[in-house]
Amino acid sequence: MIFTAHINIMPLKELLDPQGKAVNESLHKLSLQQIQDVRIGKHITLSIEAADKEAAYEIADQACKKMLYNMVMENYQIEIK
Amino acid sequence: MIFTAHINIMPLKELLDPQGKAVNESLHKLSLQQIQDVRIGKHITLSIEAADKEAAYEIADQACKKMLYNMVMENYQIEIK
Repeated sequence: MIFTAHINIMPLKELLDPQGKAVNESLHKLSLQQIQDVRIGKHITLSIEAADKEAAYEIADQACKKMLYNMVMENYQIEIK
Repeated sequence: MIFTAHINIMPLKELLDPQGKAVNESLHKLSLQQIQDVRIGKHITLSIEAADKEAAYEIADQACKKMLYNMVMENYQIEIK
């Protein structure tokens, strides 16, 4: 069966996100002052061939740990659909 | 009230995603052959000051249209929490 893993990889809350800060300031200049904070990360979808949801989660988790996320600066969340 | 908008911006399905393709090949080299397709986009969170959920959605939608997404190459989804 084919599962789709939706992975969000975001900069840790404790760290400054300079890209998000720059976008926030630009949005204010476009009259969107209601936006108070912006954080920018990655959204990755994986198509995974697996027997069940748990196996698909395990493969997505391995992909994150082996390659996709940087444990020093980011955290990740996986949702299997 | 402060709402958080979670925005996923992904390359259109019709377009080649060279970054995703490169990551897919690298994952295969790391013995994760079960992964058949990878697509990489952006995940952006906005903290928005708004009266209600609908108003927050409207502001996030404007931010996407005015700045965050490229209508030629990407689509976006907004979820307000």
